[in-house]
Parts: sequence; structure tokens; C-alpha cells
Amino acid sequence: MGNKRTIIKMQNSTSNVNVANVFQKVEKEGCKARFIPYYDGCLVMVEGTMKRELALQGLPGVMEVITTDSLFPLAGKELTGGKSSIVKIAPGVTIGGGNRVVMAGPCAVENRQQIRDAALAVKKAGASVLRGGAFKPRSNPYAFQGLGSEGIALLREAKEETGLPIVTEVMTIEAIEWLEPHIDIFQVGARNMQNFPLLKALGKVDKPVLLKRGAMSTVDEWLQAAEYILCGGNFNVILCERGIRSFETRTRNTLDLNIVPLVKSLSHLPVIVDPSHGTGIRSLVTPMSMASLAAGADGLIIEVHPRSEEALCDGAQSLSCGEFSQLMDMISRLIPALPVQEETEKICGAIPVI
Amino acid sequence: MGNKRTIIKMQNSTSNVNVANVFQKVEKEGCKARFIPYYDGCLVMVEGTMKRELALQGLPGVMEVITTDSLFPLAGKELTGGKSSIVKIAPGVTIGGGNRVVMAGPCAVENRQQIRDAALAVKKAGASVLRGGAFKPRSNPYAFQGLGSEGIALLREAKEETGLPIVTEVMTIEAIEWLEPHIDIFQVGARNMQNFPLLKALGKVDKPVLLKRGAMSTVDEWLQAAEYILCGGNFNVILCERGIRSFETRTRNTLDLNIVPLVKSLSHLPVIVDPSHGTGIRSLVTPMSMASLAAGADGLIIEVHPRSEEALCDGAQSLSCGEFSQLMDMISRLIPALPVQEETEKICGAIPVI
Amino acid sequence: MGNKRTIIKMQNSTSNVNVANVFQKVEKEGCKARFIPYYDGCLVMVEGTMKRELALQGLPGVMEVITTDSLFPLAGKELTGGKSSIVKIAPGVTIGGGNRVVMAGPCAVENRQQIRDAALAVKKAGASVLRGGAFKPRSNPYAFQGLGSEGIALLREAKEETGLPIVTEVMTIEAIEWLEPHIDIFQVGARNMQNFPLLKALGKVDKPVLLKRGAMSTVDEWLQAAEYILCGGNFNVILCERGIRSFETRTRNTLDLNIVPLVKSLSHLPVIVDPSHGTGIRSLVTPMSMASLAAGADGLIIEVHPRSEEALCDGAQSLSCGEFSQLMDMISRLIPALPVQEETEKICGAIPVI
Amino acid sequence: MGNKRTIIKMQNSTSNVNVANVFQKVEKEGCKARFIPYYDGCLVMVEGTMKRELALQGLPGVMEVITTDSLFPLAGKELTGGKSSIVKIAPGVTIGGGNRVVMAGPCAVENRQQIRDAALAVKKAGASVLRGGAFKPRSNPYAFQGLGSEGIALLREAKEETGLPIVTEVMTIEAIEWLEPHIDIFQVGARNMQNFPLLKALGKVDKPVLLKRGAMSTVDEWLQAAEYILCGGNFNVILCERGIRSFETRTRNTLDLNIVPLVKSLSHLPVIVDPSHGTGIRSLVTPMSMASLAAGADGLIIEVHPRSEEALCDGAQSLSCGEFSQLMDMISRLIPALPVQEETEKICGAIPVI
Repeated sequence: MGNKRTIIKMQNSTSNVNVANVFQKVEKEGCKARFIPYYDGCLVMVEGTMKRELALQGLPGVMEVITTDSLFPLAGKELTGGKSSIVKIAPGVTIGGGNRVVMAGPCAVENRQQIRDAALAVKKAGASVLRGGAFKPRSNPYAFQGLGSEGIALLREAKEETGLPIVTEVMTIEAIEWLEPHIDIFQVGARNMQNFPLLKALGKVDKPVLLKRGAMSTVDEWLQAAEYILCGGNFNVILCERGIRSFETRTRNTLDLNIVPLVKSLSHLPVIVDPSHGTGIRSLVTPMSMASLAAGADGLIIEVHPRSEEALCDGAQSLSCGEFSQLMDMISRLIPALPVQEETEKICGAIPVI
Repeated sequence: MGNKRTIIKMQNSTSNVNVANVFQKVEKEGCKARFIPYYDGCLVMVEGTMKRELALQGLPGVMEVITTDSLFPLAGKELTGGKSSIVKIAPGVTIGGGNRVVMAGPCAVENRQQIRDAALAVKKAGASVLRGGAFKPRSNPYAFQGLGSEGIALLREAKEETGLPIVTEVMTIEAIEWLEPHIDIFQVGARNMQNFPLLKALGKVDKPVLLKRGAMSTVDEWLQAAEYILCGGNFNVILCERGIRSFETRTRNTLDLNIVPLVKSLSHLPVIVDPSHGTGIRSLVTPMSMASLAAGADGLIIEVHPRSEEALCDGAQSLSCGEFSQLMDMISRLIPALPVQEETEKICGAIPVI
Repeated sequence: MGNKRTIIKMQNSTSNVNVANVFQKVEKEGCKARFIPYYDGCLVMVEGTMKRELALQGLPGVMEVITTDSLFPLAGKELTGGKSSIVKIAPGVTIGGGNRVVMAGPCAVENRQQIRDAALAVKKAGASVLRGGAFKPRSNPYAFQGLGSEGIALLREAKEETGLPIVTEVMTIEAIEWLEPHIDIFQVGARNMQNFPLLKALGKVDKPVLLKRGAMSTVDEWLQAAEYILCGGNFNVILCERGIRSFETRTRNTLDLNIVPLVKSLSHLPVIVDPSHGTGIRSLVTPMSMASLAAGADGLIIEVHPRSEEALCDGAQSLSCGEFSQLMDMISRLIPALPVQEETEKICGAIPVI
Repeated sequence: MGNKRTIIKMQNSTSNVNVANVFQKVEKEGCKARFIPYYDGCLVMVEGTMKRELALQGLPGVMEVITTDSLFPLAGKELTGGKSSIVKIAPGVTIGGGNRVVMAGPCAVENRQQIRDAALAVKKAGASVLRGGAFKPRSNPYAFQGLGSEGIALLREAKEETGLPIVTEVMTIEAIEWLEPHIDIFQVGARNMQNFPLLKALGKVDKPVLLKRGAMSTVDEWLQAAEYILCGGNFNVILCERGIRSFETRTRNTLDLNIVPLVKSLSHLPVIVDPSHGTGIRSLVTPMSMASLAAGADGLIIEVHPRSEEALCDGAQSLSCGEFSQLMDMISRLIPALPVQEETEKICGAIPVI
């Protein structure tokens, strides 16, 4: 349990005067308030218990007053009254609230031919977002670290040719500003899930953030990491399960699909799954993609390489273009057989605290 | 990697003389042979390298000669040439090779009314096997340990009324003999997965064995545990994933669905999933049941309690009869949308050793 | 937290009448009582809250009345008022309460020469107990499973020659009775830590039990496993940490020394450490033996093999006789530099519940 | 195993001409060379196999040629011919090669009084380095995040009064430059162990770096993280074990002391232990400090708070000044009873690859 907090939702078009008035009331009671941009409006978050909480309800510009002791008051479902958030990725591409999205592409951008071939193939097969790394965090300092800004340029070319929005990893605060005009989704890798200065900086950008779960992070730590971004005012956060570290060594990671319905019941944020890192084995990617969607995931992010035997990284877990196309066929047969969003939400309603 | 072994498959109707002849040839080369009943026939397993292995091929009664260095030569797919085994549970109830089975019922048999209500409800909803524990392994010595033989009697009554075959846990060698006439599947619980004397004893019985994966056992340890049963001559083994222990504390266990397609590519044995123990949370059972089947599982074993708020154990993870019925409806819509067995096998073919 | 329980300690020489009288009082209040032999006396354990608990204090034969809601009321320190228990292994060999014991010998008894050489060497170096397995639980059904009863006979010969008491593993209930006259400590292996029927049977024997922690077991599960033995009346239980399973693959297990001072503050039972299984690497055994004692362990169990390169199992983690002798020298320099029992207990007093 | 690499150690005072000559020879063979500052001299690291490796030996200015396929060629012991490195922290304070160092102080700097009291107390008790966090990485965005630059100013005051060098955490690249004049050791926290841009930046500074092991990181990942710093030319790296994440919930982390002797046999870098985070429980800090040193650690870093009940973070695992003083007394009795460095190195020599 976190501390008690009061969240005041202001009306979208409310005036600065009304917001200032709320701050005044809060501070009169000796409480501290925090201003949080919220889509086209704002929230005022109050730490601690207010004696005259109810009085806030009637103030001009106040839409709703929520009290919670959640560890992640902005990521939790109390904020939206139980509704799922929808994140806009690009014109015509949204995720959450029943809209599923498949992101695909190579682990790393390697050269113009490779990323172009991959982009055309995944577009044709039905993917809506192109993935590709230009800055690669590698355990070994001497391993291929990505093409850097050249990789970003090649991603842009592929985007221009295919129209696919781009998701790529950002590793430093410095890179955020110059990356922002070129890409559509900032990816935070598993190793940076608790890089708090990076998360804070991403709370100030306008683009969506794909936040991967750390390989040994609990759900509570993950949702608090999302909270770091949200409390900066960026509510376009997509969560991504990519496998956790366990004792099992046959697979690269243990894909924890339990947390798909769990997180969807705790949080309004969309949740996607990365079965490529989650398994580390090409032949497991297809069945685990199916399983992820059946568990209720809002989408997938899948490594696809036109010539995976030549891949500079993660070749063993990359689908060929043909395999990806087969998978997309299977998915298109699967989706209509799954329960609709509301049906699932009804079933996954109440998660008891353990 | 295990040691090199040669497995000689004998023809079903072959004479003792032919088998003895094979033994003689093997021992002439200084190798040791082991006799293993195999359905209506038998296998001869030879430890070590034989110089004149090929010569065995032509001997009377020999059907096939297989060499392998698998850690689990009988559980591995080399034995069946890649085909899945089909386990007969009861007249008209088989599992594996495309036949999916749902087993359902309460964690523990508590009284006549409870098991009868559960049996009728799961039968009506479409389950093919009734589960129910009479001997409960409990972490705490003072917790409810099951009704024992009285519980078995109640299970029999429920079976007679519904026609559902029964799966129940066996914890000691002594109990095997007297349980055998009453039940249809012996369940080995996660805590007993490496109780080798118990596994050896179950290698000698005629009934199928449901072998749960230990909460902290690797896939290799699990398949070697199955090998203990198989090498006694009982090939009716059903594997069951029920969640592993990880650092995540929000869920009771971490359901490791990665291993469903992994084990199906390594072994010919059917694999089912227990989403009740795998999650520990009622509202996660339905989505994870769907995910399990989408991952390729051959079936499910699910805790269903007519009045779960009164359950003596595992109430928090038991579905009500109504919830189970809803789940069975969803499953019946899901199954036709899944790829057929051969399609999956093609995709999940080669698992690289890591 | 467990349920509330009342434990009534009877005076050692008290009459059956007095015990019966206590039962009567308890049952009059509608509570259930359980009789537990306790050294030369007995305990009466009452489930639930008694209204007139205090009235028990004055009954004839009653020494002390303890109430607790511990998950392991007999293993917990409340039973002894905070004092450590001392377990008698053999004449002149006791463990606990400041008496440290080193047990050593080969993983498995392999032949007369090997066990004799090992026994003479560890005796000379200063070990007080000889270890050696005759029944070996092995992950692979085709691996060496121990010499069985022949191994026990060889252990007895070694005991007769050296005078060293023997600790050896027991895997089945059947084996307990015939093993009992030959050995001095029953070892329960990590895989059997939750083999509850075996634990119950060991609660009825007169010999000490060495209970290894399961590789996947929490401290609470371990102490409840001990409770299974204690509540049968056998209070001669020695706990043994032997490493848990983690994600780290460089070492065979992760030796969890945190739990040495933790368990000593929770329980009155002695705790020893097995650095051989706990590391799996010969060169780590010596420093981790030192660390174990510095953490407060009551002893060690160490694999020593006269010719470890020929060992049939666990050769890579066995010390040579010379290495063991060096270690014993180091230990004899270490012990006097460690704080005395009372000093440690003062410091490790209160463990907060987390 | 990593790729094959050749490392050419140049003489300390060698000329630029000699270094350039080596580069020329390497590039003539079509290999790529990397220049690495190494104390007062330099290394040339060559990727791949050189045909005329031996010819390098005779070149002017070349001291030694080492080939290795280690994953961490600079952190590995091959670089130093098996010798331990000694890191200079401040005048008169060195760590490694038999010199043990205790660092102590509060988790976070909270105010002038608190850090001053702590500094005076740990100085008096015998600590050689003062710890204290000014920038605190916290899982929850609303938790106390440290005093920032004000905290650094207070640390400086405490340093001036006591003469103790300072270790404090750095979380961003930006902070490195302005922190450098004020502090003596840069600490990289567990969550940043794989923040590769930060590690690279720390490879360029002149001050020592304390690199904590990630709670989810293998030894191989940890040593490769150190390699990121070393290959930038900063060889003053101190490794710090602070507990890993396991399934055990009674302790905050599982202190993995196995890796102390393991890492000391794999790497020349000094290794210290943080028993405060490693246990999370005050009463376990003292025994685990003793255990760490007995396992061969080169030092300790311990949380000490003058009024731990008022601590803004980690109060439950902080020693009082009196408890710390007691511990230092115990340590001073322990050290003389431990084997000397060479003795340990002899015993922990060869670690087999598993």
C-alpha cells in the first residue's frame, strides 16, 4: 500500500484561475499539491489526508475527486473508473480498449537493404508499427552496439516508404530531444526500467513510451516505473512483458503471461507482449504469440529479420518474413474467437491483494 | 547430453526367444541390456556404444533400432519418430495427438454433497475427467490433510453417477495398490516430482500417471522424472505444467507457458496446464486457460468448487460452477480457431540446444 | 501467521492421570488436544483459543503454558523461551547451544576401500560424524543410484573402525525401520523436504534427523517441514542449508547464508551448512565453510573423497583428504575468534516480520 | 566464451612512436586495434587472431602480449597474471591485495546533524570511508529522492571534519563532472549496473568506481559491466555484492557470498559486500558482515544511522552507532584468524567452467 493521496481531475477547458484556486484550498489545509498535465486538461495530486476533501467537489473547474492509497495512483484503474486507456500511436493506429497492434521488425537496424526488406514484409503481412534498434544495449562492451544516428536515418527512410510508424529504444536523456522528431514511440528497454532520470525525462515528451518490464522486476515495480512517466504528464504509456529471469535455462527468459490479465485488472494502460525475447527461440514465438493474445494482450512486438542467419543480434529468436506472415494469418483467425474486451474485464475484475 | 544409448523396438507379437536372442547379441559385445515393456510389445535398451549396431536391425522380431544421447531417451521424440503419443484415460477419453481434455473439480473432496455437486456441474459444462484430492500434501502439519479413504469412496460415488473418470493424487508407494481399482489417473504432485521411489513404483502400474512439474524444476529434470516412470514400462504419462516459483509475489506461481510448445517439441508425451495453481487467483484462471490452449496444450486441469467461499483449501483460485461453464463456452469457440496439430508441429520443429 | 495454539508443557515425571486431567479440561471447553512426546516428558497442544487458559497453569503436572500463533509452534523459539536446543548424536557428540560439529565423507559409498580411506582421513582431521550415501536420489534414472544395503554394511564397518557416528540419507518409509539400528542420523534430502509421509514417519523414530532445506523452499516451508517431525515427538532435528536455486549458473546452487542467523533467531533447532552442494565447486568449499561458521552455523557437512577424480558422483565438489585437513586447521584458528553464542543471540534477537 | 583477443601491454614510459608502431603492425594484418589507458601506461587490444602475434613481443616498448577468449579480458585475472589489483581510494586508504576496507554511513544524507553524527561515529569505530546518498533511486516516484546537491555539500563538510573519503551514488552522466571534485568514489547502484552509457562515461574519470551487482545479474554480466568501465581506461573499479533477488521473502535480498571467492578467482578486482541491502534486517547485518570477510571479501559497506528509527530510508537495515562499534570490535578479532590472501588464492585457484 502507498500513502493516501487525493487526485483532483480538472475539466479540460478550465481556466488557470480555477486551478490556482484548487491549489490554494489544498495549501490552506497544510497539504502539498502537484500539478500534472493530463491529456488536454490537468490533474492536481494532493499528498496526505484533507479534512475537507468533499468541499473540493463543488469548486469551479473540478470534474472529479478521487482518493486512493495505491502505490501507483496514476497508473491504477481508479483514475479512469475502471476503463482502459487508448494510446494514439499515429494517425489511424491506436492501441488499447480493444484495439490490438502488432509491431514487428529486426532487433537491430543493420543496413538499408535489411531494414527496407523487413519493413516491406511486415507491412505486407499486416503489422502496424515497425520496430528496429539503432542504439543497442549489449551485455558485452565489444559486441555490436547499433548503427546509432545512421540507423535512425535508415528507419526514417523505411517509414517514408511504408508509412509504418517507428518504435525504437532510447538509452539516454540526451538522445530524447533529437530522436523525438524522427520516431513515433520511445522504447525503454528492460535494463532501463528503473533508470528513473530517463523515465522522468520521458514524462515530458509528447510521444508514446513503450515501457518494457525488467527481467527481474515485480509488477508493482513496473507499474511504479510507469508512474514516473505519468506523473510528468505523459499518459501515453504502453507496457510490454518480455519475459522474466527464472532458473529455467532451456528458454532465454520465462514469459510471464499471468501478468497480462493481472496488469489489465490493476491498470488502465495497454499491455503488449514480446514473445521473441520472452522465449529466445524462433519456434516458440508463434505459439507464444497466440497465447499472449488469448491471455488478453493488446498487442505484440515481434522480431522479424529477412535473413535471420546473418543477423548481428538475436538471430535465433527472429522469425523469417514468411514465418511472420504465417503467424499473422493465424492471428487473424484467432482474434474473432476471443472474448470481447468487456467480457474479459468482467471476468478479470477483482484481483485480491496477496 | 546423456550417455549414448541404443533402443531396440521389438515387434508387438514377437516371441521370448527373439527377445532373448537380442539380449545375447548385446551381452556378447560386453554391453548391458534392460528390458522395458512397451504397450503390447517391448523395448531393449542398451547402455553404451555397440560396434555392430546395424547387425541388430536384421534380427528376427526387431522392428527398429534407435540410437540417442538424450537425457530422456524414452520420453524424447526420437522414440516415436516425432509423433505424439495418445494416452487412453477411459473408454472414449483419450489425450494427445490433437485430442484435448479438460479435467475439473475441487481441490479436495470435502463431503458427499460438495463432490457430487461439483461432478454434476463440470460434467454438464463439458469436462471429461473429474479431479479431487483425498490425500492433500500441505505445507503446514496442522492444516486439513484430506479425507483419505473416505474421500476416495466419495469420488467413486461421483464417478458412478456421472461416468466421469477420476484423477487423484497419490503420495506413497503403499497407497498405489489399493487406490488402483478405484481411480483412473494417478496424480503425482509438484512436491513429489522427484520422489524417485514413488515414480519407480508408478512405472509398474497399468493406469495413466499425471506428472506435475515441480515448482522449481527445470524441463530437463521433469522429463527425466517422466523417464523414471517410462523405464518401468508405463508409457501412459501425462505431463502437467502448474507454475514455477519466481520472485513475483502478486501471483501464487508463475505459469510457464513457454514450456508447452518447448516440451511438445522435445517429447511425445501430452502436456496439460493447471491454471488454478499456476496463478492462484480466480480471475486469472479463465484468460490463462485460453492462453494455455493457444500455446498448444493438450488439455487443462481446473479447480471448480460449488461454494468456493467455503472451500477447505485453495478457495481463492477455484472457479464457481457458473464461471467454469462460461469458460467451457469460450473454449469451444477458441478451439476451431487454433492451428491443427500438424501445423503447430511443423512450426515448433527444431528446438536448438542452448 | 498460523492459528492460535496453546502448548502445555508437562513436568517430566508427571503421571498419566495428570495428563488425562489436562485433556479433560481442554475438551470441556470444546477444544481439541494433541499429545506430543517431548524428550522424557510430553506436551499437550490445543488448537484454538481457550477461555480459561490461565486455569491450566495451576493443574498438577503442568510446568508451563505457552500460547502462540506461530506457523511452527514446536520449531519456534517460544517453546524453549529463546534457548537453543542441543541434539545428542552419539556419546560425546552433541550439536547446538555452542557445540559445533563437522560431518564429512564421500557423497556416495562406492566400495570398502573408498569409505574406509575417507573415514580414517576425516576422523584424523577432526570430523565428528561420517557422511556417506547408500541410497542416492538422482535426477537421471540411469545414473548410479548407490550401493543400497551393501553400502550400509560398509558404512557400519567404517563406523566400527573409527568410532565415528554415521549420517546417511533415507528415501522411503519402508527403509526407516531396518536402517535405524545401523545408523546415527537419518538424512532427509532436499528433494524430500516436503515428502510429508516420510517426515511423519521420522517423527516416530528415536534417532536424530538431518533435514535439508529444499532447493526451492522458503524458510517458512522448511520450518513447517521440521514441525512435521517434531509434532510426532522427535525433537532431535538438525536443519541443514544446502543452497537454493537461483538464476546464477556459475555455481551449482546459491548458498543462502542469510538464513543461518535468521533461522537461529526464529527456531531453537541447530542449523548446519553444506557448502559442497551449496557451491558445487571444490575451490569454493573452503571459503564458504569459513563463512558459514562466521555466520553462526552450528556445524558443517562436507563432501570428502580420497580420490575425487574417480568419484561416481559429485566429484567436482568433493575435497581431497588433504584439502579437508587444511580446512580443519583453518577452522580451528577461526572458532576462537568468533563471538560466543550468547553474544550472537543478543545481536540477532528480534527479527521483524516482513 | 568471448571472441579471441590479443592484449599488448606497453611499458609505462614508452613513446607515442612505439605505440603507433604497434598499431601499424596490427592493422597491417587487417586487425582492428583499440587504445586503452592503463594506469601510467597503456594497452593495445586487438580483436581477432593475429598470424604473427609473437612478432609483437620484440617490438620496442612492448612489455607483454596476452591472448584470451575471456568475455571480460580486462577484468579477468589473465591481465594481471593472477595478481589482485590494489585500488587507491585516498591517501593512506587502499583496497585489494590483502587490504580490507570498511565503508559506513547512512543510506541517505538527511541533514547536517545526522551526517555529522554518523561520520564522527563511524570514524571513531574504525571505518575508513564515509557512505551517504544524495541522489536516491527509489521505486516509487513520490518517495524521498535525496537532498541532491545540498546533500553533497553536507557530505563535504563531514569529510572535512573527519578526514574520511566519501562514496556516493551517481545516476546520470550529467552529474559526473560536477560531482568529481567533491567525492572520492562514484557508486553505481544495482539498478544501473547495466546502464551502459553511464558506465562508459565513468570509464573516463580518474576516481574509483564502486560497481554494485544488479539484483538480477549473473556474475558474467557483472564482470562485463566492469569491463565497460575498464575499457575506457579507468581501472579503479571495486565490485560490490549486495544481494540478489530470489523466491525467499523473509529477507530483502539473498546475499550471494558464493560469488566472493568465485569472483576473486576470476577477476583481479577487489570485491566488497553490502550486508545491509543483502539482508534488509538489522540483526542479520553483523553475522553476515563476519561471514563476508570469512568468505574472503576485501571489505564491507554498511548502513549506519545515528537514529535509525527516524531514518527517511532503509531504517530497518541500519545499524546504530553503538552496534556498528561492536561489529568493528568483532571484526578486529576476526581478521587475524583468517587465512592470508596467498593462502586463499592457492585454495581458490582453478574455477572450472560450468
